[in-house]
Amino acid sequence: MRDGRTHLKKVIKLVVRIVKTKKPTCAEVGEQAVIEAIIKQAPCTRNGDDAAVLDYLAPNSRPVISTDMLVEGRHFRRDWSSPAEIGRKAITQNFADVEAMGARPVAVLLALSIPSYTRLDFVSELARGIAERMDDYGGELVGGDVTDGDSIVISITGIGQLGGSLPALRLDHARPGQAVVATGDIGESAAGYALLNRFGRSGVPAKFDSLIQAHCAATVPPGRGFVARSAGVTAMTDNSDGLIHDVHTMAKKSGVTINLHSTAITPNPLIIEAAELLDIDPWQFVLAGGEDHTLIGTTFGPAPTGFREIGTVVRHNSMGETTVDNKTPLYTSGWGSF
Amino acid sequence: MRDGRTHLKKVIKLVVRIVKTKKPTCAEVGEQAVIEAIIKQAPCTRNGDDAAVLDYLAPNSRPVISTDMLVEGRHFRRDWSSPAEIGRKAITQNFADVEAMGARPVAVLLALSIPSYTRLDFVSELARGIAERMDDYGGELVGGDVTDGDSIVISITGIGQLGGSLPALRLDHARPGQAVVATGDIGESAAGYALLNRFGRSGVPAKFDSLIQAHCAATVPPGRGFVARSAGVTAMTDNSDGLIHDVHTMAKKSGVTINLHSTAITPNPLIIEAAELLDIDPWQFVLAGGEDHTLIGTTFGPAPTGFREIGTVVRHNSMGETTVDNKTPLYTSGWGSF
Repeated sequence: MRDGRTHLKKVIKLVVRIVKTKKPTCAEVGEQAVIEAIIKQAPCTRNGDDAAVLDYLAPNSRPVISTDMLVEGRHFRRDWSSPAEIGRKAITQNFADVEAMGARPVAVLLALSIPSYTRLDFVSELARGIAERMDDYGGELVGGDVTDGDSIVISITGIGQLGGSLPALRLDHARPGQAVVATGDIGESAAGYALLNRFGRSGVPAKFDSLIQAHCAATVPPGRGFVARSAGVTAMTDNSDGLIHDVHTMAKKSGVTINLHSTAITPNPLIIEAAELLDIDPWQFVLAGGEDHTLIGTTFGPAPTGFREIGTVVRHNSMGETTVDNKTPLYTSGWGSF
Repeated sequence: MRDGRTHLKKVIKLVVRIVKTKKPTCAEVGEQAVIEAIIKQAPCTRNGDDAAVLDYLAPNSRPVISTDMLVEGRHFRRDWSSPAEIGRKAITQNFADVEAMGARPVAVLLALSIPSYTRLDFVSELARGIAERMDDYGGELVGGDVTDGDSIVISITGIGQLGGSLPALRLDHARPGQAVVATGDIGESAAGYALLNRFGRSGVPAKFDSLIQAHCAATVPPGRGFVARSAGVTAMTDNSDGLIHDVHTMAKKSGVTINLHSTAITPNPLIIEAAELLDIDPWQFVLAGGEDHTLIGTTFGPAPTGFREIGTVVRHNSMGETTVDNKTPLYTSGWGSF
């Protein structure tokens, strides 16, 4: 009988400990605590009113604004990416769009739909990733909205400022005779995605870590869009849906033929190694991959700091045309919803 | 045999007609056509690049920015609201937040997640409702994002400009001795919601149409926030989560006691009639309802044009307190996610 009681006490103690250490869900803590968890990770005095009032922009500057929606299972997988990585990538991809206009990103808003049974931890870690990446840009999370929903949907709105009287770096501003310039390695994110798809996060050999990072927490150096515009770039986009797809959008909107030099976009050795392991042509990652969020621009001047030349705007062409070494590219498909 | 053939021909003709008249889904037309359907309803030259570049703001003005996420089944029901009504309400509620800072709304972005089997029609009609409501404000839909998703999730980001050197109308700027002022009828949206909940859209008697409209396509006159700030209002919010809930947020943030006069917020005759039909206290709609998106401010001056006095900021109170006729309100609950 005493033994039975002791056992019961032990069980009760264990249950109490499990309940105490169980991480709370959003439903358990409620909306206000969810918001507070975000603000704790990304503190900002402008947050918490009906709307966020930003600083006065620099004189003679314009607001630039972009929004992205990330849906669980389509744009990220929680077995592939940590919540902080998801947050980092969300900022990178949004700010790449702001930078692709030549603007300086300054602030974001976060709208978040999550199932109520989601751990509060997920929200905190997501906000931490956002805040860390915002720090790289010297920007802040200035406001947002949270709501219960059937799936995790993250909507990021980024704001930047475009100073001075130079035009924005529009897709239709590529001109014959210009060089095509780009930052960063192209194809890494797609190679990382293919590895994850084959092996899962834990199964990918450690030597491919940088490719996995490129896919799960894409990071590009801040300020390249601003630098490019100052240095004479006239048209710009970011490699989000696939290199050929995105360059071709620029070619069509500008009414030009753009030719890329294969030697300048050759897959790097790690991409080639991953491709061999997967038995996939590495050029597929480079030409059709996307999601690197590197910037691609056109200029009559030399390549700006941090950029290299990868091609030429060859001639007017009202239909728009994109070639590699003056031939039709091997891979042309790109990301598309539905 | 001839009869059989004739019959077969008739059946084939009928099938062809059904296939031809069947409205296409988003999956059938693809991402680009979905975007084009939106732009057709809400044309804007700033749309279609990586990010939207807005006009130079008026000199000495600041950007004000707010985001809302609307989830099907939680924030709207398609058997209660038409897609155009959903679009109209999305703009009203977002711009009410921008106006509640004293700013003038100028632009929105739309991020949209929809199941691929959704009719393209839904997207077109949603965009039409957004564009129509934007027209009321003289603003434009300047960009966005569309994606496949398991449920319909609408994320609206609104931008306004706050001119001049007066402070924004923050929640913490209510001061003892001020009058509390408000625009519009309070409680109509909640009464409409209760009617829909009981009878469904088609079952609500026609005489209650204005209450249904108040819930499904809330419309408030544009520019009241801007007018209020010019006329000396110092603190403002909109009635979105419930009158007492929202006023109490202001009371807490400002560290004051706010007293509302019941005579100034008495439910209108139609709300009373609906309440009788439903056997619900009409004061519940007024005090706890929310979603009217009427503006509520505090001022030392007279009520600005379009506003009426509904209460007083009584005294400092570091805990924050909200009363009706100097008593604890009958209903205090408000909207909360999770």
